[in-house]
Amino acid sequence: MGEGLKVAVVGATGAVGNMMIKVLEERNFPVKQLKLLASKRSAGRKLQFRNSEIEVQELTESSFDDVELALFSAGASVSRKFAPIAASKGCVVVDNSSAFRMEPDVPLVVPEVNPYALKHHKKIIANPNCSTIQMVVALKPLQDAAGIKRIIVTTFQAVSGTGQKAIFELEEQVKAWVHGKQLEPKVYPHQIAFNCLPHIGSFLDNGYSEEEMKMVNETRKIFEDNSIQVSATTVRVPVFYGHSESINVELKNPLTPDDVRDLLEKAPGVRVIDDPGSFKYPLPLDVAGSDITFVGRIRKDISVDNGIAMWVVADNIRKGAATNAVQIAEILQKESLI
Amino acid sequence: MGEGLKVAVVGATGAVGNMMIKVLEERNFPVKQLKLLASKRSAGRKLQFRNSEIEVQELTESSFDDVELALFSAGASVSRKFAPIAASKGCVVVDNSSAFRMEPDVPLVVPEVNPYALKHHKKIIANPNCSTIQMVVALKPLQDAAGIKRIIVTTFQAVSGTGQKAIFELEEQVKAWVHGKQLEPKVYPHQIAFNCLPHIGSFLDNGYSEEEMKMVNETRKIFEDNSIQVSATTVRVPVFYGHSESINVELKNPLTPDDVRDLLEKAPGVRVIDDPGSFKYPLPLDVAGSDITFVGRIRKDISVDNGIAMWVVADNIRKGAATNAVQIAEILQKESLI
Repeated sequence: MGEGLKVAVVGATGAVGNMMIKVLEERNFPVKQLKLLASKRSAGRKLQFRNSEIEVQELTESSFDDVELALFSAGASVSRKFAPIAASKGCVVVDNSSAFRMEPDVPLVVPEVNPYALKHHKKIIANPNCSTIQMVVALKPLQDAAGIKRIIVTTFQAVSGTGQKAIFELEEQVKAWVHGKQLEPKVYPHQIAFNCLPHIGSFLDNGYSEEEMKMVNETRKIFEDNSIQVSATTVRVPVFYGHSESINVELKNPLTPDDVRDLLEKAPGVRVIDDPGSFKYPLPLDVAGSDITFVGRIRKDISVDNGIAMWVVADNIRKGAATNAVQIAEILQKESLI
Repeated sequence: MGEGLKVAVVGATGAVGNMMIKVLEERNFPVKQLKLLASKRSAGRKLQFRNSEIEVQELTESSFDDVELALFSAGASVSRKFAPIAASKGCVVVDNSSAFRMEPDVPLVVPEVNPYALKHHKKIIANPNCSTIQMVVALKPLQDAAGIKRIIVTTFQAVSGTGQKAIFELEEQVKAWVHGKQLEPKVYPHQIAFNCLPHIGSFLDNGYSEEEMKMVNETRKIFEDNSIQVSATTVRVPVFYGHSESINVELKNPLTPDDVRDLLEKAPGVRVIDDPGSFKYPLPLDVAGSDITFVGRIRKDISVDNGIAMWVVADNIRKGAATNAVQIAEILQKESLI
């Protein structure tokens, strides 16, 4: 495969793992050798990368002996077990699970926001949660320009965030409905077709869900600012790809909606689509397949001083997961941090 | 039809008008005579009420000559023209459109919240917007107990709020998708199936939509408290029936989540479903067909002092429109205000 790194994708047959392979190819990441790893059940399947078919291998302790960079997306328990093994063998891990995100020694990185956090990594780097990534990309210019005091966010999250099984579940429920039938939910505790579930992840003692508290804790860690107050409500909606977020942000200093549009138009990884009178605002159906974070409905939050309301949409599997991980890998490679 | 009032339903063939007829029957409203009115196009259709079929008549200026109570749900322009005509003939109008809601002389009433506003009506009474109704029902006990300073709300609104055509549009788009096709949107500017549209009503100069500003202005009028600050983001989602709302409310005085649950459990028209660890929270699919406003996910808003976050769901065609109008009529009838 030419010059480059010996790379592994762990969880290669999942929704995010699959997309990681695609994004490595699209962005022409310098891959010398690609190893695809998954559970025993998926071993033997063949996946396309560039012009070759690669057989998926079972993930074992020796999988990382000849790997320099591993992108993990196989769930927190797999990461907890295998990422330290990979790191002990000199492999640098970019982990998409929640396993290490809040570890003080582990950089939690969104390339448009805090690339500098990569500098002193100790072989394991964490990819933030999908709903956090798109929010901090959109809020970074506001934090720099005016300082963020408080964020209220409500999410509209696509089923692809749960994985392939959930995409299949929504498909099957909709097909059953068209044929006058009803299917028992399996992946979610309730039917997702034609419904909204205010439930992502387990619930904690404070009444928030894990997903909601990720948006609080990860935002503070990425911005390195524990004074930012965050309250999140995360909701699963019957959408396949693309998370949408309704954000009300209270700033320390005033910014007009025009200021915010100007800042966001110059911000890396952001596109402003904001002409609602002409029916132009970001939509999950439109952003699927893109690596950009889209922002619209930018207006003064009329309920508070220095408030801004906005609508932020991104492809949760790409920018929310696979692309962000590959972008991290690109910096590591370019800055010789691997 | 026995004892009671001579009643008309204007817009009888629409989604809300149809439900008004059903709710009048279900709640055994004292109807002596029922006149069903609609546009010329719908005249001649027959609709069931109790044991008889009633033919829909064309709405004209003389339609109200023998009517004591008219429930209007045929859009703002029809109300603007015909409600004053009806009133001038001595008929009391309960109007579901936005035409008169903000008129100082017109009571804007949610029976669980401000029934007293009916006392001095001048023949026209306005039914609030669906998304406002369920919010104020859930917030009334908090306003009474602790005072509301600020409300941030994001809605997940069902297509039935737009009417029969929109229900049909979502159905047809989903059927087309199952057959591998795509349909041009007609009712909405974009596909609603598998999408979220942050656009309900026209957009105003301040960047908010009409629907969003209704939630601001109507809430203040119903609570008779212009000090309440509100910012709303209203979003159409691919759900048939049932609006959901993510609400963050900042109170003047502290209330714990348990206080809020206690208050809401005692509140009229409210049911608390709040055991998320056991998968119990209100869902639009579950509340369709009910007249109750359901509240769950009650927790401290951890981003502010005296903050409460909650999830509020109600059937937008029933409590959000038809039932609320019939409840108003019930008070008018019982208190001899007709």
